[in-house]
Amino acid sequence: MKIILAPNTFKESLPAEQVCAAMERGIRAVTDQAQCISIPMADGGDGTAEALVAARQGTWVELTANDPLMRPVPVRYGLIDEGKTAVMEMAEVSGLRRLQEAEKNPQKTTTFGTGEIIRNALDRGVENIVIGIGGSATTDAGIGMAAALGYRFLDAMGKDVQPIGGEMNRIQRIDASRMHPRLNQVKIGVACDVTNPLLGPQGAAPVYGPQKGATPEMVKQLEAGLAQVAQCWRGDLGQDLEDMPGGGAAGGLGAGLAAFCGAELRSGFELVAEYAQLDRVLEGADLAFTGEGKIDGQTAFGKVPAGVGRHAQKLGIPVVALGGCIAPDAAALLDVGITALFSIVPSPMTLSESMSCTSELVERTTEQVMRLFLCK
Amino acid sequence: MKIILAPNTFKESLPAEQVCAAMERGIRAVTDQAQCISIPMADGGDGTAEALVAARQGTWVELTANDPLMRPVPVRYGLIDEGKTAVMEMAEVSGLRRLQEAEKNPQKTTTFGTGEIIRNALDRGVENIVIGIGGSATTDAGIGMAAALGYRFLDAMGKDVQPIGGEMNRIQRIDASRMHPRLNQVKIGVACDVTNPLLGPQGAAPVYGPQKGATPEMVKQLEAGLAQVAQCWRGDLGQDLEDMPGGGAAGGLGAGLAAFCGAELRSGFELVAEYAQLDRVLEGADLAFTGEGKIDGQTAFGKVPAGVGRHAQKLGIPVVALGGCIAPDAAALLDVGITALFSIVPSPMTLSESMSCTSELVERTTEQVMRLFLCK
Repeated sequence: MKIILAPNTFKESLPAEQVCAAMERGIRAVTDQAQCISIPMADGGDGTAEALVAARQGTWVELTANDPLMRPVPVRYGLIDEGKTAVMEMAEVSGLRRLQEAEKNPQKTTTFGTGEIIRNALDRGVENIVIGIGGSATTDAGIGMAAALGYRFLDAMGKDVQPIGGEMNRIQRIDASRMHPRLNQVKIGVACDVTNPLLGPQGAAPVYGPQKGATPEMVKQLEAGLAQVAQCWRGDLGQDLEDMPGGGAAGGLGAGLAAFCGAELRSGFELVAEYAQLDRVLEGADLAFTGEGKIDGQTAFGKVPAGVGRHAQKLGIPVVALGGCIAPDAAALLDVGITALFSIVPSPMTLSESMSCTSELVERTTEQVMRLFLCK
Repeated sequence: MKIILAPNTFKESLPAEQVCAAMERGIRAVTDQAQCISIPMADGGDGTAEALVAARQGTWVELTANDPLMRPVPVRYGLIDEGKTAVMEMAEVSGLRRLQEAEKNPQKTTTFGTGEIIRNALDRGVENIVIGIGGSATTDAGIGMAAALGYRFLDAMGKDVQPIGGEMNRIQRIDASRMHPRLNQVKIGVACDVTNPLLGPQGAAPVYGPQKGATPEMVKQLEAGLAQVAQCWRGDLGQDLEDMPGGGAAGGLGAGLAAFCGAELRSGFELVAEYAQLDRVLEGADLAFTGEGKIDGQTAFGKVPAGVGRHAQKLGIPVVALGGCIAPDAAALLDVGITALFSIVPSPMTLSESMSCTSELVERTTEQVMRLFLCK
């Protein structure tokens, strides 16, 4: 019997790899006749690099790069496919997690560090880059990243503009002449799970600016700055990205990766599933487990459990999804290949109580599911 | 496909019959190919009469009887087996639920009303009586009940003693000469799920007295009174019941039913299972559901889910138990025939939140279990 364990990270509680381990313990408590294959999943958010490194037995590269306020910090990214593919997350260096509450300010922050990590991977000779862009602290349209990759941003006087959110509206020209020479040679996939465009009421500044520390006044200035950068993309790079779905992700880094690096924005889950070789792993399985901290109606759109459900359904494999919270509208998942949904919460308790023992609860619930699955 | 629904009542939340209905809705959401048979269960506590009436399509007899403080109240008991068997609960008339908090006082309360219900059944010509004795407000060794059935209790002067807890120690003689003539002709099964003896540190007065309103001083007096009654049982009725397991149940009504009525104390679940014909119903089933509000290590001892598990196991039928609260030590149930245990709690929430929508949660969880059960 072959059983696939393909959960997402239980956010702020248990990394996907440890969810897999807990599921495997639950299965082992019932039978030693099962071959368990762990393939931790992700959707472009937290844990994307970890999931791919774990799924593909990759390695880690450690380096120093600059955080959103240009302070050097130790960071890492993964290598899989014998070093041909780099897997990274923008939040590792340019994420909100790098800032204190009082430091949040999208006018001052930059994605420069993300560019440094990409540069390191280019220098190492990778052929593919997978980058998750959730959790950013920035709204700079990726100009920080681009600067680290050799792009120059010039003002009306031809002087270099500092690549931070608050300076975007001073940019008159983009100079790509010193761009990293390998940037055109790699295929970059961006794991993105929002469809917001760069500009407008659903754009990067009004929708995500406030959670990064933007005041209403800043939102207006950032919106103008993003529009200014988009105009330069049209004029200097010949790229019209204002309406691209996902362009507004990560403070415009979504559009910036497309504009500066020729990257392709993809569903985070699908990109991860492709690089983790989910379909190959699923083949011939008798049962699959997936899961996520919170499963609700939104989960049916692009999130890990729905993705695993869809892929398994094509192969006729039943999938059980476990969640720390199963909202009433989570039933939508039952239409996309999820056979059954179970909560890991064993009794009335608080969120923090359940999050303090997620591993044990996942194990116990998996054991019950397995007992039922095998009972006939 | 034949599926048996045999849950207990979810205490203070959902009667067993409604748990069955919710389970059936969950199954119907998945398949219309299942024959669902509801057999609500009980263990002698709340819902015992309802469960048997529902399981056996019985009828109800309504009458007026006296509550623990001798106030007339409308009460009912059930008839099954074409009227041959009466099913009743002492708490219906003599239970704590009949008293306000300030009225609780085991020296003043009586089981007289319970005797009145039994008398009504005897007058109606029943051959069997099943009586659940959980939830009593009394500690009177059943003298109240016996008085309603014709027994007389006399003091040293040969005068009638009032059959209440506080008068027990005045009893010098029991006169059975006016006992109800049919009392010897019926078989009385007492559904009892405690094993406390009448007297001593594990007896009726010290263990259960306080929750019925007894002060430490009252506990001592009640203990002496129970001992006095036990002595009269020996002297006047030739019965030695001091050490009988369960004799201390319901304030000594357990022993009193044995002494005054020749009743047999049984495991509440086993008695209900016998009269509900659980084994016959289970025969040929593909799957059974059971459940209870709280499932813990104690549940493996005589409670409904364990009982259903044991009976189904003998017939090789898988059983899924659903609970509002699954304690970590509930895993003990997996050794007594329960195939798998699932919580109905879908996410972190309070007890009152979960209890406010038990029916819906049972339905949803049953649906998931059924989807998994049918997936292969």
